[in-house]
Amino acid sequence: MKTFRAIDPSTGKELEGDFQAAGKEDVGKALALAEKAFAVYRNIDKDTKATFLLDIAAGINAIGDQLIERAMAESGLPMGRLQGERGRTTGQLTMFANLVKEGSWVEAVIDNAQPDRQPAPRPDIRKLLVPMGPAVVFGASNFPLAFSVAGGDTASALAAGCPVIVKAHPAHPGTSALVAEAIKEAAQKNNLPEGVFSMLFDDGYAIGEALVKHPKTKIVTFTGSFNGGTALVKLAQQREVPIPVFAEMGSINPTIILPAALVNRYQQIAEQYAASITLGTGQFCTNPGLLIAVESEATNKFKHALGGAIEKMVPSTMLTPGIHNNYAKLSAAILLEKGVGLLGKSESANSNKANQAVPLVAEVSAADFLKNPKLCEEVFGPFSLLVIAESAAELQLVIEALPGQLTASVVADADDLVIYKEPINSLVNIAGRVILNNVPTGVEVVPSMQHGGPFPATSDGRFTSVGTGAIKRFVRPVAFQNWAPELLPPELKDGNPLGIWRTVDGVFTK
Amino acid sequence: MKTFRAIDPSTGKELEGDFQAAGKEDVGKALALAEKAFAVYRNIDKDTKATFLLDIAAGINAIGDQLIERAMAESGLPMGRLQGERGRTTGQLTMFANLVKEGSWVEAVIDNAQPDRQPAPRPDIRKLLVPMGPAVVFGASNFPLAFSVAGGDTASALAAGCPVIVKAHPAHPGTSALVAEAIKEAAQKNNLPEGVFSMLFDDGYAIGEALVKHPKTKIVTFTGSFNGGTALVKLAQQREVPIPVFAEMGSINPTIILPAALVNRYQQIAEQYAASITLGTGQFCTNPGLLIAVESEATNKFKHALGGAIEKMVPSTMLTPGIHNNYAKLSAAILLEKGVGLLGKSESANSNKANQAVPLVAEVSAADFLKNPKLCEEVFGPFSLLVIAESAAELQLVIEALPGQLTASVVADADDLVIYKEPINSLVNIAGRVILNNVPTGVEVVPSMQHGGPFPATSDGRFTSVGTGAIKRFVRPVAFQNWAPELLPPELKDGNPLGIWRTVDGVFTK
Repeated sequence: MKTFRAIDPSTGKELEGDFQAAGKEDVGKALALAEKAFAVYRNIDKDTKATFLLDIAAGINAIGDQLIERAMAESGLPMGRLQGERGRTTGQLTMFANLVKEGSWVEAVIDNAQPDRQPAPRPDIRKLLVPMGPAVVFGASNFPLAFSVAGGDTASALAAGCPVIVKAHPAHPGTSALVAEAIKEAAQKNNLPEGVFSMLFDDGYAIGEALVKHPKTKIVTFTGSFNGGTALVKLAQQREVPIPVFAEMGSINPTIILPAALVNRYQQIAEQYAASITLGTGQFCTNPGLLIAVESEATNKFKHALGGAIEKMVPSTMLTPGIHNNYAKLSAAILLEKGVGLLGKSESANSNKANQAVPLVAEVSAADFLKNPKLCEEVFGPFSLLVIAESAAELQLVIEALPGQLTASVVADADDLVIYKEPINSLVNIAGRVILNNVPTGVEVVPSMQHGGPFPATSDGRFTSVGTGAIKRFVRPVAFQNWAPELLPPELKDGNPLGIWRTVDGVFTK
Repeated sequence: MKTFRAIDPSTGKELEGDFQAAGKEDVGKALALAEKAFAVYRNIDKDTKATFLLDIAAGINAIGDQLIERAMAESGLPMGRLQGERGRTTGQLTMFANLVKEGSWVEAVIDNAQPDRQPAPRPDIRKLLVPMGPAVVFGASNFPLAFSVAGGDTASALAAGCPVIVKAHPAHPGTSALVAEAIKEAAQKNNLPEGVFSMLFDDGYAIGEALVKHPKTKIVTFTGSFNGGTALVKLAQQREVPIPVFAEMGSINPTIILPAALVNRYQQIAEQYAASITLGTGQFCTNPGLLIAVESEATNKFKHALGGAIEKMVPSTMLTPGIHNNYAKLSAAILLEKGVGLLGKSESANSNKANQAVPLVAEVSAADFLKNPKLCEEVFGPFSLLVIAESAAELQLVIEALPGQLTASVVADADDLVIYKEPINSLVNIAGRVILNNVPTGVEVVPSMQHGGPFPATSDGRFTSVGTGAIKRFVRPVAFQNWAPELLPPELKDGNPLGIWRTVDGVFTK
């Protein structure tokens, strides 16, 4: 039996606790249980589903300090951040519990029969969203709580009525085990079938692949690298019955910093962005990895201020040795690309801790940027590249050359909004979320959130992985024609027994 | 310059009129125009968009008898059917005009800022659906009006704000040319940019392939064969930036005919299904190609009645010589499969017309059916296969063996609904629309319609190609964070100037 251990990235040493890597037979078992559970769970009443989600949140809180301590040891993230992330995780579970309890998310539509219609009567037709089946959730390394075992993907899948099989991220198996236990207890407490939730460990790729290929798997969610995400998408497309993979794969989150804003407040912008670039050791999907400005006196001052602000930043621990190696390699390599120069680098580069990321900002001319597609690739960590355009026209060329992004931001003052209206509006073409005078880091968990952008930022920019909309990744519509009233789901019954919002004969009503 | 002509399938002879096959350079031109048009059309006010759609409908009606006559000659379909289909086409355009005019379809969500939130203020975030860009619509052969040049795909794409490039179906180029002219005139009348609509002819595959591969194409819609649909999906997935393909690929639309219903009304059911199987020469995507019953005395009577009803049906013209050849080949080949027997076949098999499809119904035991996946493949035309199960348990096995379907129907009386509740409910797992005591042919154009089922019925069962929901295939959400009020789209502005339904701080309001 193969086991593995977690590594404390701040020391590079193994932590206590052996975790057993799953075998292929475990994949089959988990999916057989999930399919069996689906037959029951898909029709479970909405209050039980909501209670289940709330019980998971309560269970996570009940673990107490042990969870935070283990997550700190496994991720190198500081206590405050992980406490905040725990709050976000239980907040997400609560949000989906409320969504499910309210019930209107199923988008019920009823068109009553028209028996007298000519030339033929119109039948009664009613439609709602139904869950698609077992979902495989890949835990993400960069949010060991909020995008891992009981994170947004699991919460939204369970809310939709889909059983979940988590492939635990090998960087935080202890954290994963604690949270999985809380989910299992909540399932038992609510008398839900065992297969509503399972988790499998593996420190390689075999189990993840087997989960995606298994015919009983109906949906896959993933947050990680472009290579990882596209590999899973390919596996899913090659199945006899292809399935959707929602992969969030990375983004350089361009920020246009416009002239009037720079004249008025270059120092403040430099400090604000230096903080955003280094937040969480730069390990957010929405890290501002690309800044774009137009050449000017104020831009020169901004460059100087940004370089200075980055020099004052202190290195911090990355999530894993692999991520750290990659960051060290890529942030060094980019300085060797044609025309790229160093703008600033943390000056407190030495540390007695392992896997420390050195914050770094580079610069390049728009002309060189436009010739080198490599400069559009993500450097995961506390890094950003400042692109200097010669003119507004060249700024527009840079925007048009960008691949799909999670976010695109603008730093602008009143004059900029008038003069640069077209490039600002064009950001909608490339991103899932556009932001004015705010940093892209910090993804609010609200119904209006769109966390998903055009390829290659995500595999499917039509969906979001954050906010209530995330539930839509696990469902499809089914229409019931002339269906027997007693067989209709409660959401579609006459008299609206659940009291939800529905579209009845074209009118939105409750 | 390569040209081709249409063929009258009822004579097998060429019709007047040379149509010029497009070259690859025409693809580039059309997409350059479409991209240019998109920059304007995506932001066009909703009333102009609605008027454009209504003007297309009026233009189609203005063509008058010429359109019906040409469509009859090119498709072999009768006048009444094509007049009805024209009404459906203009009805769809009107429905989308109304949807756009009303405006709530963009799913606007507003979460106002919470400046006092602790530990950090919450920014203002607003979200809506935006069009994705130029859509390539493949005209379908079996609905020369309603799923062709100005059919549901074009209407919903234009409604969403996406320019359309139609790849005309080579079976009805004359009909296509007449309708395209009406769309172009409507675009001019509303001062829309030229590239908002283009059409390309080709009697081969090269132009279709080039359209799907072109980097400026953002969405593809298709109705046709499994091989055609999956080939387009593959091309779209292999692009540098993959794009969605909404392919409706075929379905055998299983119908479970339950014992009590058969005892009470086997003759009526036989006649109803014989009519549905042969409707439109069996060339509907929702044709009931598979009937499933449980062995009984009443089932024997039903078999006899169904065979007799089919014998009385008269052969009719298929859409193209290719479709007819395929039908003749497949309906003959299926009788050679193990255990398959003939139940009934039209007795008026001779005709002085060409490309006549002979209605035919076959039967097989559930045991043989379960061993032969070939029997789940669509035989496009007036054909159905009756599967006889030995028991309710075997009936359930047949249901579970079925691939994804557009529709699944039940013929049942009161007792059946109680006894067969589980197999009836399980139909939701395999189909986009479930139907009780109605035939699947006849797809109502209503908001509650779901015309799209799990793979392989369609490439993406999460979307519909009929009904108002069809607009969702052309859009993605974009969130605006802390955006300047003057730059917000009108749907998201304070004060709700368009008067649409929006979710504001979690409350549905208008």
